[in-house]
Amino acid sequence: MADVMPSTRRFAITSIDGGITAPTGFRSAAVHCGIKARVGALDLAVLAVDTFASMAALFTTNLAQAAPVLVSKRHLEVNGGMGCAIVVNSGCANACTGSDGLAHAARMAEETALDLGCEPEQVLVASTGVIGVALKMDRLVPGIHEACSSLAHGNASEAARAIMTTDPFPKEHAVRVTTPLGSFSVGGMAKGSGMIEPNMATMLAFLTTDAQVTPVMLRRALKESARDTFNAITVDGECSTNDSLFAMASGTSGVVIDEELYPALLEGLLAVSRELALGIVRGGEGATKLLAVTVCDARTVDDARQVARTIANSPLVKTAVHGADPNWGRIVAAAGRAGVMFDIGRVTVHVGGVLLFENGLPHDDAAPEAAEILTRDTVDIEVSLGAGDAAATIWGCDLSAEYVRINGEYRT
Amino acid sequence: MADVMPSTRRFAITSIDGGITAPTGFRSAAVHCGIKARVGALDLAVLAVDTFASMAALFTTNLAQAAPVLVSKRHLEVNGGMGCAIVVNSGCANACTGSDGLAHAARMAEETALDLGCEPEQVLVASTGVIGVALKMDRLVPGIHEACSSLAHGNASEAARAIMTTDPFPKEHAVRVTTPLGSFSVGGMAKGSGMIEPNMATMLAFLTTDAQVTPVMLRRALKESARDTFNAITVDGECSTNDSLFAMASGTSGVVIDEELYPALLEGLLAVSRELALGIVRGGEGATKLLAVTVCDARTVDDARQVARTIANSPLVKTAVHGADPNWGRIVAAAGRAGVMFDIGRVTVHVGGVLLFENGLPHDDAAPEAAEILTRDTVDIEVSLGAGDAAATIWGCDLSAEYVRINGEYRT
Repeated sequence: MADVMPSTRRFAITSIDGGITAPTGFRSAAVHCGIKARVGALDLAVLAVDTFASMAALFTTNLAQAAPVLVSKRHLEVNGGMGCAIVVNSGCANACTGSDGLAHAARMAEETALDLGCEPEQVLVASTGVIGVALKMDRLVPGIHEACSSLAHGNASEAARAIMTTDPFPKEHAVRVTTPLGSFSVGGMAKGSGMIEPNMATMLAFLTTDAQVTPVMLRRALKESARDTFNAITVDGECSTNDSLFAMASGTSGVVIDEELYPALLEGLLAVSRELALGIVRGGEGATKLLAVTVCDARTVDDARQVARTIANSPLVKTAVHGADPNWGRIVAAAGRAGVMFDIGRVTVHVGGVLLFENGLPHDDAAPEAAEILTRDTVDIEVSLGAGDAAATIWGCDLSAEYVRINGEYRT
Repeated sequence: MADVMPSTRRFAITSIDGGITAPTGFRSAAVHCGIKARVGALDLAVLAVDTFASMAALFTTNLAQAAPVLVSKRHLEVNGGMGCAIVVNSGCANACTGSDGLAHAARMAEETALDLGCEPEQVLVASTGVIGVALKMDRLVPGIHEACSSLAHGNASEAARAIMTTDPFPKEHAVRVTTPLGSFSVGGMAKGSGMIEPNMATMLAFLTTDAQVTPVMLRRALKESARDTFNAITVDGECSTNDSLFAMASGTSGVVIDEELYPALLEGLLAVSRELALGIVRGGEGATKLLAVTVCDARTVDDARQVARTIANSPLVKTAVHGADPNWGRIVAAAGRAGVMFDIGRVTVHVGGVLLFENGLPHDDAAPEAAEILTRDTVDIEVSLGAGDAAATIWGCDLSAEYVRINGEYRT
C-alpha cells in the first residue's frame, strides 16, 4: 500500500460509527419478510440515497451468474452509473433460476423504484443464500414496501444483520477522511462467509461515501481498493454465483474528488474494505484463526499473489494452522506447487516471526516457539522467495471440522 | 480409453495374485529397520530384478523436490534406463534436508548396489513420510543389508505394507496379459494418502512387468497410462515433494513389446494403475466415499479435465458429498469458476445417474432420489458442458472431519 500512503500524506483517516449511513445522504432499512424461515430474522434491506448517487460495482467472475448479478449489470449499463438505491435479500440466492429468476430480480428493482420515485434501472439488486430456489415474491414485494417506508439514517446495523446467511457476526465499518479541502466519510457493510475466494465469492459488500465523485473515478477507486482487500481474501477457494461489491457516492459532503484528492478517496475505501474483508475471513465458516500469508522478494506482484494464495488455500497448511502445528514443510510444498518459478534453496519461511526454514534446511529448534504462536487467533506466515522485490498478502483462515459440519449439513 | 481398447482387441487381461513379484524376474523384501517408531512396523523395502531391467519413472512437478527424487533422476540419466533395483523407506521423506539429505539418498543406492553387485547408479531411491527430518542412516544401512539378504518372489504384500504412511490399507494389484504372441504379467503397489493431486502427489507407485520392452517405450507407456490413472486422482489438491511412479521391465517372459503389442502393454499398465489409483483415493485421508467426476461434451479434453478437477477439488462439493446432500448448485458453481468457457444454459448435471440440472434450471423433485444414491460408497457426478464431444474423468473423495483431525494432529 506504499503507493497510496506517501509520507507527505495530507489527509487523515479516523474510524467513526454509523456503517453504511455514516456518510451523509444515505438512508437504509431492514425487515423480516419471510425468505428466512426463522420468525423475526431480518432478510431484506434497502439502501437508498436522498437524491442521486454515482454508482459502481464489481461482480463474480463465475460463468454461472445469478439473476441479481445479471440484472444489476444491465441496470448499470442503462443508468450510466447514476442511481438511487440497492435492494438486497438474504436466504435465497436467486441463482440457477432461469427466466423466472431474472423476472424476479427485475421486479425487486421495479418495486423499490416505485416507492422511491425513480426508474427501475436506477436500482441495483443483490441476493444471497441457497442456489436454485425461487424467490417467494409474495413475501418479498410487501417486504420491499415495508422497508422503503421505514428508510432512515440510523438503521445501518440492522441492514448489516439483514444481509447475513451463515455469518457468525455482522460486519460494518466507517471512517472519516479529513483533507485540507474538506472532509468526507466512507461507510460499508459486508457478508461472507463460505465460498470466499479472490475475485469475489459469496460475498456481498456495500460501500457508501458522501464524497462527490464521477462514476468513472468511483469505479477506478473501487477496483483498486478491492485488489488488496476483498480480492485478497480466501476462506475455501470457492467463487460464487452471486458475489457483488457495490459503491455509491452521494456527493453531499461537497468535497469534490479530483486527481489530487483521489488518494484520499482510495485510502478511505481501503480502510473500510480492509476491515470488512478481514471480518469476512474471521467469520469464515468454521474459522478459528485469521491467517495472513505474505510472500515477499518475488519476481512480480502476480507471482507473490499466486504463491500466497496457494499457501492460504492449501488444506494441509490450513489444518496444520488449526492444529497449531508449525509444519513449515507443508508451506514449502504448497509454495513449490504454485506454478511460479523460484529457487527453493533461497526460500525462507517465518511463522509468527519465527524463522523455520532457510537455505533448504529447517530450523526445528525454533518449532516449539512457533507452535506457541500458532495458538493465537491471528497467524502470520511470511515466505521470502529470494527472487526479486515484489510482495503481496492474502488473508485466509484455518480449516476446522466445523467447516465440514456446516457444509455437510447446510441444506439437508 | 477408447483409443487403447479397439473392438478388434486381440489380447485378454485377467487379474492375478502376487503384486509386484507376480511378473517373473523380480524379488522383493521388507523389513522394520527403525525409521518408524512402532516396533515391528515395516518401513523399508527393496525391489530387485534378477538380471537387469528397463526402467522408467515420473516424478513430482513440485519445485521442492526431495533428495530421493533428485538422486533417482540423476541415476536414470546415468544408467540410460537400465537398472537393477529400487530401495524405498517410509516414515521419513528425506525432503528439505539439504546436502546431507542428498548424501543419504545416494548412500541408500550405494548400500543396495553393494549387496546386489551392481553400480549405485543402477539403483533408484524413494522415501515417504515427514518432511525436514534427517534419515537415521545408522538404522537404515543395516536394514538395507537385512532386506537384500532376504529378497524373494513371495514377499510382495509385505513390501506393499512397508511403503505405507497414513494409508489405511495396502494397495497392490497384478494382471496377466494374454496375446497371440505370448503372455506376460504386470504387477504393482502404491501408497497414498494425503497430498494427492493430479501430477503426482505424496504418492509412491511401483510397477513391474516381465514383458521385454526398451526403456524408451516403457517410459512412453508409463506416461500414457499415468494420464488417466495416477494423474487423474485427487484427495486434497496437494502435490508433494516426493511423488514418484516407477516402472521396471525384466523381459523374462520373452514377449517382446513392439508397436503391434504396445497396446497390450499399455492396457496391462492401465489395468494395474487404475486399481492402485482408485485404491489411493478410497484410502485418502478421512475419505468415506469415492467420487468419480466425469465431464463430457467439452470442447477439448483439457477443458474437460480442468472442470472435472475443479469440481473434484471443491471443498463445498466434497463436504456436500460427505453429507449426502445432492447440492447441484455447488457443482455448477465449481464448474463455472474452473476458468473454462462454456454456456451455463446448456449444462446438465447428473448425480448418480439422476438428472438434477438442465437448461439453467434445477430438477429438485429428483433430489431425494439423488440423496439416497449419495449415501453409497461410490458417487458418480456427470456434467455435460454442451460445448463439444471431449470427455475426462477425475477421481476424488469426500472431505470429512476426520481429514481435519488427521492433518491437524499429524506431527504434533
